[in-house]
Amino acid sequence: MERIPILRMGHFLLVTIQVDLYDQLAENLESDLVHMVKKTQAKGVLIDVSAVSIIDSFMGRILGNIANMSKIMDAETVVVGMQPAVAITLVELGLPLKGVYSALNVERGMQLLHSKIIFDQEEEEAEAEGDDDDHSIE
Amino acid sequence: MERIPILRMGHFLLVTIQVDLYDQLAENLESDLVHMVKKTQAKGVLIDVSAVSIIDSFMGRILGNIANMSKIMDAETVVVGMQPAVAITLVELGLPLKGVYSALNVERGMQLLHSKIIFDQEEEEAEAEGDDDDHSIE
Repeated sequence: MERIPILRMGHFLLVTIQVDLYDQLAENLESDLVHMVKKTQAKGVLIDVSAVSIIDSFMGRILGNIANMSKIMDAETVVVGMQPAVAITLVELGLPLKGVYSALNVERGMQLLHSKIIFDQEEEEAEAEGDDDDHSIE
Repeated sequence: MERIPILRMGHFLLVTIQVDLYDQLAENLESDLVHMVKKTQAKGVLIDVSAVSIIDSFMGRILGNIANMSKIMDAETVVVGMQPAVAITLVELGLPLKGVYSALNVERGMQLLHSKIIFDQEEEEAEAEGDDDDHSIE
């Protein structure tokens, strides 16, 4: 397999990682994901790692990269479904996945993203109103 | 990998098949899926095969089995994201996936399931009303 499928679910993209990420696959995933964020104007990316039993430093870095890239493209990233043993190992290895949100499962991840997007929209509306006020003053 | 993750999305379950299904994996998937349908009271199952480049008769039978099992558990099955080449091959092989609904992508699959479930609910409501009428006549 050369590509991990990226599924569109409304405003979000869902990626289910089921296989070990090797160099080419990870690179393709990063590239596909930023292109999909642009194409679908997605506001959030959900990465399901429930089938992953080992997350090493490489995969940790890839997850971090994806979160940073998505952030630049104005989309939040949530890692969902992490197994307890994986969480323990990550922290013991000193890889606390900084900059990546996490949730227990896909549903909660979507709720988290919804709350963030509503917050953003309110912020934008507030800003838009602020702009209007500025214009009216001019 | 021994198990394919099954994600819960509201009333539906989502399965993304990314690897070739061998005997044990397919058996586990069938078993996990019917248990998840019971546990989550799911009304629909979405099977994403966009990462699958070859569907042979074994996989076709598994998809049919899943659809039949889910149907008995009162859940509809929709296969989504099939690649054009796979569809061509399936028909040429004489495996038209009978009894399985299909949709172009996950979003359309969810719409299809939503339309089916609303229809079912209306049917149940109509039946319930019919029952009420019977009681009032008694």
